Amino acid sequence: MRIGIGILGGGVVGGTLARKLIIEKDAVAAKSGLELSLVRVAARSADKPRQFPSTLLTTDPNEVVDDPNVALVVELMGGLEPARTLILRALDAGKPVVTANKELLAADGPELFRRAEAKGVSILFEAAVGGGIPIIRPLSESLAGERLTRVMGILNGTTNFILGQMERGASYSEALAEAQRLGYAEADPTADVSGGDAAAKAAILAGLAFGVWLGKDAVYREGIESLDPKDLSFARQLGYAVKLLAVAESTEQGVAARVHPAFIPVEHPLAGVRGAYNAIFIEGPAVGRLFFSGPGAGGEPTATAVLGDIIDAARELLAGVPVVPRVRVGAGQRAESSSISTKWYLRLEVADAPGVLAQVASVFGRHEVSIMSVWQEGRGDDATLILITHDAPEANHRAAAADLATLPVVKQVAATIRVQSDRP
Amino acid sequence: MRIGIGILGGGVVGGTLARKLIIEKDAVAAKSGLELSLVRVAARSADKPRQFPSTLLTTDPNEVVDDPNVALVVELMGGLEPARTLILRALDAGKPVVTANKELLAADGPELFRRAEAKGVSILFEAAVGGGIPIIRPLSESLAGERLTRVMGILNGTTNFILGQMERGASYSEALAEAQRLGYAEADPTADVSGGDAAAKAAILAGLAFGVWLGKDAVYREGIESLDPKDLSFARQLGYAVKLLAVAESTEQGVAARVHPAFIPVEHPLAGVRGAYNAIFIEGPAVGRLFFSGPGAGGEPTATAVLGDIIDAARELLAGVPVVPRVRVGAGQRAESSSISTKWYLRLEVADAPGVLAQVASVFGRHEVSIMSVWQEGRGDDATLILITHDAPEANHRAAAADLATLPVVKQVAATIRVQSDRP
Repeated sequence: MRIGIGILGGGVVGGTLARKLIIEKDAVAAKSGLELSLVRVAARSADKPRQFPSTLLTTDPNEVVDDPNVALVVELMGGLEPARTLILRALDAGKPVVTANKELLAADGPELFRRAEAKGVSILFEAAVGGGIPIIRPLSESLAGERLTRVMGILNGTTNFILGQMERGASYSEALAEAQRLGYAEADPTADVSGGDAAAKAAILAGLAFGVWLGKDAVYREGIESLDPKDLSFARQLGYAVKLLAVAESTEQGVAARVHPAFIPVEHPLAGVRGAYNAIFIEGPAVGRLFFSGPGAGGEPTATAVLGDIIDAARELLAGVPVVPRVRVGAGQRAESSSISTKWYLRLEVADAPGVLAQVASVFGRHEVSIMSVWQEGRGDDATLILITHDAPEANHRAAAADLATLPVVKQVAATIRVQSDRP
Repeated sequence: MRIGIGILGGGVVGGTLARKLIIEKDAVAAKSGLELSLVRVAARSADKPRQFPSTLLTTDPNEVVDDPNVALVVELMGGLEPARTLILRALDAGKPVVTANKELLAADGPELFRRAEAKGVSILFEAAVGGGIPIIRPLSESLAGERLTRVMGILNGTTNFILGQMERGASYSEALAEAQRLGYAEADPTADVSGGDAAAKAAILAGLAFGVWLGKDAVYREGIESLDPKDLSFARQLGYAVKLLAVAESTEQGVAARVHPAFIPVEHPLAGVRGAYNAIFIEGPAVGRLFFSGPGAGGEPTATAVLGDIIDAARELLAGVPVVPRVRVGAGQRAESSSISTKWYLRLEVADAPGVLAQVASVFGRHEVSIMSVWQEGRGDDATLILITHDAPEANHRAAAADLATLPVVKQVAATIRVQSDRP
C-alpha cells in the first residue's frame, strides 16, 4: 500500500529526506514492504535549487497538511510556531506526525502526546535528540522494564566542536567563527552556545526516562560563552577535558536536569567525544551503564532517523491500531537543581599573602564543602588559587562562592565549573 | 488486560526475569499499561532454591507451552533442542515468543521467522546479542532507512575478560581459571573461547543489517585459545590492544562475517572496552558511525532486555495485529571470507642471517602483500621478526604465510593475527 508523505521545512534535513524518499524508494520497499511516496514539501522560498522536483514545492505549509494525498506529515521547520499549530492540525486530521522539533517537544510534549492519543495516531521524534543516534526508541521500548536513574551526555555538537577548537588553543570567538564557517553553528548561535538546545533535549530525555516532563525552563543551564581558555588549560593540566554536559537524574528528592560546562576525566568515554559528535549514557540498577554515540546532527544522519520513524508511523497507519508505544507522562516529583550534589572546580584570583588559604578554607568549611585539592599558580599580584571540592549540594557551593567573593584577600572568583568525575 | 507469561529455563536469566516480573509488576503496569503475570516456569531441577514461588515451577517445559493461562512464552534454555521444538510449538499455538537463544537464531532464524509470520505472532530476541545493550531494535527499526555497510564489535564478554587478564600478564589458562571462578566462563568454555558464541551473534547481526542469513558456520572463525602472551606484549609495544573482534560486512563481493583476535589501536573506542562489556559499531553512508556499549551478559541486564521484548510482544497481543517489524531475510550474495581485505601482524622465528629480510620480503611481494613495518627482536638463535602488512585479501595473506613456513631461514610462523586499524 502507498503512503503519501508531506514534509514541512525545506532546509538541510528536509531536503535530504526528500531526496532519500525519492532515491531509496525501492530499497525501503524491499526492506519494509512499504511504498512511501513523497507528495508535497513546504519551504520558505520558492526560488532556491532543491533536491526534489519543483512540482512538489509549496510555500504554504497548510497545503501540505491539508493535502488529501498526504497521509503522514513530517515537521522539520523547528521553533514553536507555526510548527505547533500545524502538528496539531495534522493530528486532528488523523495524520501521524514525525518531528525533529526538540524545542516544541520540550515545551509542549504532553499536549502533543495527549492530542495524538485522542486521535489514535502517533507522534514520533527519534531525530529530536542525538541526530542519527537511536536513543528515543531504546529509552521508550527496550528499557521499558528498567527503573532508570540517570541519563547523561553530550547533546549539542556545535558546542562540542567549539570546545574542541578551544582545547587546541583557539579563543571562544575564533572557535565560534570556525564553527560558523563550517556550517556547524548558525549566524545567531545563541540556542547552541547558551545551552538552550541541549536543555531542551535533556528535558525530553528526562521525560522519557522518568515520566516527568520538566519543560526546558526547569533545566538548570549555563552556556559556554563565558568560558576562559585559561580554565581549559588548567583542566588539561589536571587531567580533565571540558565538555558541555547534560544530566537528567532521578533522585530521592525528585527528577532534575541540568546543562553546564563540566570537567570530565580524560579517561572517561565522554572526554573522547570529538567534533560535532554526541554521546549518551543511560544508567539503571539492572542494565548498568549503556553508552551510545554517533553523529549528533547533519542532514544525512538526521534524515535517516526521521526515515526510521516514517516507516514505523506508516506501519501503524496500515495496521490501524497503535504499534508504537505511547509516551506516558506522569506527575512525578521535580527536584530543585540546588539540591543536586556535584564537585566544583574554582579559580580564585587572590592576594599572595600568608593565611589566604586558611581564610578560603574556612569559608568552605562554614558551608560544609570539603576541599579535595588545592593548587597555587603564580606569585605576588598574579597569584591564582585552583581548588577542586568534594561532592556537596549546589546550594552549599553557590553560597560558598558568594562568600568567597566578599573576602578581602580574594580579588575575584574568576571561574566556577562543575566536575563530573564518576568513572564508568 | 492481564497477560500470562511462561518461562522456559530457570537459570540465572530465567530466575532474574521471574523475580523482576513479580517485583516490578506495578512499575511495569504504570509505565506500559500492561498487567504481566508470571504463570509458570520450567527448570531442569525441582530442588534448587528459586527466586519465584515453587508453586509456579515445573520440570516439564511442555507444561509451560501448553498451559492455557500462558499467553506468551519466554525461552531462556539455550541450545538447539528442545528449544527449537518448544518455540515452534508455542508459535503454532499462536503464542508470541521472546528468546535470548543466539545459537538457535543463527542456525534456524529464517524458519522461526517464517513460522511466526504464518501464525501472525512475533518472535523477539533483543537479549540474544549484546546482553543489555539495545541493538536489535535500533538495527531493525531506527536504521530501517539506511543501507548499512558494516557492523563490528566485541560480542563476547568472557573472552574480553580473559584477554584483559592476559594483558595484565596472566597466562591463558590462569585467565580462564579466574573467569571461571568469577562465573564469567562456564566449566566447558569452548563456545566462548573458540569464538563460536560471537560467531552466532555476528551471524544474527549480519542477517538484520544486510538481510542475508549466513548461519554460524559461514562465519570465519578463530578463537583465543592459542594466543601467546608474547603477542599481547608485542601488541602493547606497538600501540595496540588485542580483542576478539566480530565483523559483518556488506561489500561488492557480498556479505561476509568473521570472528577472530585482532590488534586494535589503543586510541580506538573498542580498545577501551573492559572486562565483560560488549561494544558495537554500526556503520553506513548516512548515519556515519554509531557506537553502542554496555554490559554484554549477566542476569540483570539480560533480563531487562527480555522484559522490554515481553512488553512489546504483549502490546502486540492486545493490538491483535503485528506491531513489531518482522525480520526480512533476503537472498543476497554471500562473500567468501578469503576475499576480505585486512592487515596482518606476523611473528616469525627466524635464523639471524644476512638476507633473511630480503627472502621474507620477496615472498610477500610474490603474493602482492606489501609490508607496512618490520621489527627485529633478539639476535642469533632467538631472532624474531615482527611484521605488519598493508591491507590485502585474506587469500594472499594465507598463501604468503604458507610459503614463509617453507623458507629454510624461517623456523616457524609463530603467530598471525589480523590488524583492524581503521580509526573511527
